[in-house]
Amino acid sequence: MNLAQALFSPRAVALVGASGDEAKNTSRPQRYLAKHGYGGTIVPINASRSEVLGLKSYRSVNDIPFDIDHAFIMVADVEGALEDCGRKGVPVASIFSDGFADAGAEGMARQAKLAARARELGVRLLGPNSMGMINLSGRVALTVNAILEMETPPAGGSSIVSQSGTMLGTVLSRGAARGLGFSKLVSVGNEADIGVGELVELLAADPETRTILLFLETVRDADRLAAGARAAHAAGKPVVAYKLGRSQLGERLARSHTGALAGEDRALDAYFRDCGILRVDMLETLIEIGPMLAGRRPPDIERTARVGVVTTTGGGAASVVDRLGTLGIETAAPGSDAPIVDLTMGPKSAGYGAVVEELLGFAGCDAVLAVVGSSAQFHPQHAVDPVIAASKRRDKPLAVFLTPQAEQSLALLAQAGVAAFRTPEACADAFHAYFAWRTPSAGRNGTPAEWPKDIPRKGRPTEAQAMALFSALGIPVVDSGIARAPDYAHSLPYPVALKILSADVAHKSDVGGVILNIASRQEFESKAKALAMKGEPLLVQRMQAGLAEAIIGYRDDPVAGPLAIVGAGGVLAELYNDVVVRLAPVDEAGALEMIGQVKGFAVLRGYRGLPQGDVKSLARALAALSRLALVAGRPVSEAEANPVIVRRDGVVAVDALAVMKEA
Amino acid sequence: MNLAQALFSPRAVALVGASGDEAKNTSRPQRYLAKHGYGGTIVPINASRSEVLGLKSYRSVNDIPFDIDHAFIMVADVEGALEDCGRKGVPVASIFSDGFADAGAEGMARQAKLAARARELGVRLLGPNSMGMINLSGRVALTVNAILEMETPPAGGSSIVSQSGTMLGTVLSRGAARGLGFSKLVSVGNEADIGVGELVELLAADPETRTILLFLETVRDADRLAAGARAAHAAGKPVVAYKLGRSQLGERLARSHTGALAGEDRALDAYFRDCGILRVDMLETLIEIGPMLAGRRPPDIERTARVGVVTTTGGGAASVVDRLGTLGIETAAPGSDAPIVDLTMGPKSAGYGAVVEELLGFAGCDAVLAVVGSSAQFHPQHAVDPVIAASKRRDKPLAVFLTPQAEQSLALLAQAGVAAFRTPEACADAFHAYFAWRTPSAGRNGTPAEWPKDIPRKGRPTEAQAMALFSALGIPVVDSGIARAPDYAHSLPYPVALKILSADVAHKSDVGGVILNIASRQEFESKAKALAMKGEPLLVQRMQAGLAEAIIGYRDDPVAGPLAIVGAGGVLAELYNDVVVRLAPVDEAGALEMIGQVKGFAVLRGYRGLPQGDVKSLARALAALSRLALVAGRPVSEAEANPVIVRRDGVVAVDALAVMKEA
Repeated sequence: MNLAQALFSPRAVALVGASGDEAKNTSRPQRYLAKHGYGGTIVPINASRSEVLGLKSYRSVNDIPFDIDHAFIMVADVEGALEDCGRKGVPVASIFSDGFADAGAEGMARQAKLAARARELGVRLLGPNSMGMINLSGRVALTVNAILEMETPPAGGSSIVSQSGTMLGTVLSRGAARGLGFSKLVSVGNEADIGVGELVELLAADPETRTILLFLETVRDADRLAAGARAAHAAGKPVVAYKLGRSQLGERLARSHTGALAGEDRALDAYFRDCGILRVDMLETLIEIGPMLAGRRPPDIERTARVGVVTTTGGGAASVVDRLGTLGIETAAPGSDAPIVDLTMGPKSAGYGAVVEELLGFAGCDAVLAVVGSSAQFHPQHAVDPVIAASKRRDKPLAVFLTPQAEQSLALLAQAGVAAFRTPEACADAFHAYFAWRTPSAGRNGTPAEWPKDIPRKGRPTEAQAMALFSALGIPVVDSGIARAPDYAHSLPYPVALKILSADVAHKSDVGGVILNIASRQEFESKAKALAMKGEPLLVQRMQAGLAEAIIGYRDDPVAGPLAIVGAGGVLAELYNDVVVRLAPVDEAGALEMIGQVKGFAVLRGYRGLPQGDVKSLARALAALSRLALVAGRPVSEAEANPVIVRRDGVVAVDALAVMKEA
Repeated sequence: MNLAQALFSPRAVALVGASGDEAKNTSRPQRYLAKHGYGGTIVPINASRSEVLGLKSYRSVNDIPFDIDHAFIMVADVEGALEDCGRKGVPVASIFSDGFADAGAEGMARQAKLAARARELGVRLLGPNSMGMINLSGRVALTVNAILEMETPPAGGSSIVSQSGTMLGTVLSRGAARGLGFSKLVSVGNEADIGVGELVELLAADPETRTILLFLETVRDADRLAAGARAAHAAGKPVVAYKLGRSQLGERLARSHTGALAGEDRALDAYFRDCGILRVDMLETLIEIGPMLAGRRPPDIERTARVGVVTTTGGGAASVVDRLGTLGIETAAPGSDAPIVDLTMGPKSAGYGAVVEELLGFAGCDAVLAVVGSSAQFHPQHAVDPVIAASKRRDKPLAVFLTPQAEQSLALLAQAGVAAFRTPEACADAFHAYFAWRTPSAGRNGTPAEWPKDIPRKGRPTEAQAMALFSALGIPVVDSGIARAPDYAHSLPYPVALKILSADVAHKSDVGGVILNIASRQEFESKAKALAMKGEPLLVQRMQAGLAEAIIGYRDDPVAGPLAIVGAGGVLAELYNDVVVRLAPVDEAGALEMIGQVKGFAVLRGYRGLPQGDVKSLARALAALSRLALVAGRPVSEAEANPVIVRRDGVVAVDALAVMKEA
């Protein structure tokens, strides 16, 4: 019995702490398993009774005279129950009980101990603080989620993994109301052992799952989830994430500009994209998008995406098309200048299906939207049959938006595997997520990068040391030297810039620690002495001029892992949040693509007749910096060159900051 | 019988072109009126029959032997039917027939003629191309909208005016499915006579309407709608708009930067705000927001808005709160640092109501959100009763989000007049619209502005003329002079700037028509001769330095009317769309508020220790420019100073552009 079978399709389950009082949560798994047609053996475990809700019960898992595939633990003494499971050889335990990582530092320690002991015992854990698992395809409702009070919801091809147990109920009940089913629904709780990433791997191999949905509050193991996403991609199963809980933690931890700019949510955006995970913006999109993606591959569209639209209501289509427009998506219709095919006044039904089919075959669009008006409410079969018939042509994704309240039409479409959306906004969101979908990147598999011998792997590098590091990585850096008291001699030609050399000050210019454009030796001497009040050494650099300033950065994000960051220089990156973030490392082509998405770099792209800047050299510098992700042990926490001067020919970093993980 | 009565509550209606064939659209009004309990007299008009669906019919309206309050015209010969209505003294005719402004230039001319004739006859028109009017409070279903096939939907306190007839069905059916009713629903069609603005006025006076909803594709009469919105405000009735069809027309017509930046949709955003109309982003928000606003006044909140949140599901609350965060709205809870009150694990029901009541009375928040989980599905009464009881306390707006599918709970809340939302996004959108709601501005009621005598009111002003106009308005402009061949003498001190003086070139610097920083007479002469290749005169200006550049603009938008525009200078306004738009004129306080919202002006507000700029003088200049809206006849189509140099003390416009309406 492998993990997937024990987790999703156990032949026998033990319910540890099962109650005979139907008002109690702990009675639910037994009631729900029975109610929803579980075909295996249910064994209640109750310390003080020999029978629970009509079934023979035992005092301990260990007392059961046959094999148990999966234990569901609801008692306070989780540790005791785990020991029993270990002795009994139960392969998986789901733990509903809380009081672990959800309960402060003490709970965190308790959880670490529990997980370690489970590893020793060979018991895999779901939870703690998990609401359990629902397998609708296999009729296993092993959960305390009250949503299972409903009649058996339909099964479908999407499975969902959720960090919020209650939201599984939301997904299930909203889907069921319109005949839209799911296969597996898993509440991961605190992820002490089995996490989101491993579940994605399991679902990638699950024959009943066609699309994998994630409801996330954070990402606890980015590398594992990335691996899971790659496995799903290899299996041809799209992975879709809805992520909440944009924590400020990452931002508070950040010291550099780019660090703050690439906050957790932005970092995860880059992470999802580079892992080939679609990210949706709205809750119902997560519920509705499954059938639109099942069996599809990332379109990797680089040009403006186009949707072919047919409708029986102008206003209804406009509500989606307008939204698509704000998301940068256009429409296209065959053989005409009209943006959409509007059949409001024309022949209905047969004609409608023919247009859907024509659009699905039309090379001028990348996906198709069919909008249906009031007929969807009063003549469901008649309204959706032509769409369902046309959907057999699977050239490209098809989405349906029904303008009225129309559960029956929604159910007919769901049964036929056609994606239908309740709101114009979720419909547009689904198209947007689909078009932004990219093939997963290769991951951190490049040649390891060498760490320069003369630069310490910990401590607080000065700007001069950071410059040396950047130079060693292959980034052109400004000519510079260190000038020392008493005469502050240096050999650089004027004009020069002068900076304090402290490792304590990340933003020197904010504290008056930078003097630019010093034109002569005489001016230099007086300014150097004023700047170095206690006679400390100073950094001298040749002044540089160029077409524009850029900022390039690297950050080892605590959640998403190493990131490459590029943005417009000066105050633009910060004021306008004009930065682009990707997982590091990036190659030169990837860096060039990032640079192409920075709005402020319009001034480097020949905007308004301005001369063009050397974006290729900038891309090389960014790619070089991002190779910090390939240094063994990844000693750097953050690194940033701000600004990098971009010239017509070449770039040069005139400022460097590096923050090590170990002080 | 006044217009409102004839329109919404006619005692007798004539259905011109009524058909006895139930499969035809033209049979619908008679069937729907009867089905939905119309208490007045229905008179079918049919050229070839004496009876239609059991009612005596006439050949012409004119043949009816008693008074008709409202005619519904469905025949092709609209003109003939109108003449009959005129002879008969019918006060209002709704016209379903199309082939008018919806059908090209010829139809447009036909419509103008029809409207003129209706004025002569004293018949008011709804339409043409209108689907009619539904008065649920008064049981008048005078419409061809197929949605009326449904059983009688509930009546409620929101009325809706729509430029899309089919979308009334969407609103009605989605509302009905959850027990949410409406009062009047009006399809305005082409607005040949009665338009959205007049309907808002009528609804402002309608005792059954508490909130006025608008589904708009454009605004056809901005001044009339503004007046309607002010009347609604005076009557204490909120007006909410959902607007589609972001046309590119306004942008194509624009010649100046600010013109393009203040495109139609942006202009209408400013227009709605200044008219005191709330704008919602999502379709279902329009349906759901009514009860949240009924009886409320604009909050006019200037600081960050705060919502008090109570929930029985952490994930459900987070889905709304997260979205609120992205919209710049915070949360607040009494007596704790926790962002929300989470009762997931605590006592339910009674405790829940008490928290809602506490939040409604809590001075630290401006509105309240109550989130309910799975209990809303299985125990509706139990789940929503505490919220309904607490809602009697009306200190501030209350919104409910139910995470599961829960029609019954939604209906209970609707009946109790409590706003409930189906999706977290629409819920957050409603809070956002509420907090952005402002008291209507005074309109264009300032002292008329004088037009300078020596500047022509039409033609193509040169930059020198535009400078003179700006100066006359009270805007500080740069010292300048005109230098002429052969020696290009001038009396300005160096350094100076030199510009070509053509009215044909709006963006001189794009074509090399501007030379900056000329340091000496010698340099000046050679550059002047090179620039003026044919010996034409040139504009000479003193060079100006300052802390930052700004762009100020005025535009008489074809849809929204006169606008004031301010943005960051240089390329920032364009690259980052960093502009703020309001209806013109604005006073200095209003201008200062606009300036405060331009992101790029952080550099004038002491950002990173930079010196502060004279934003008050910039506000005075913007207010002065916006007074072009008060010039008799409004001769200026667009005007712009780009850049205005902002100093520590004072501002100065160094470039001026004015485009007149008449060439």
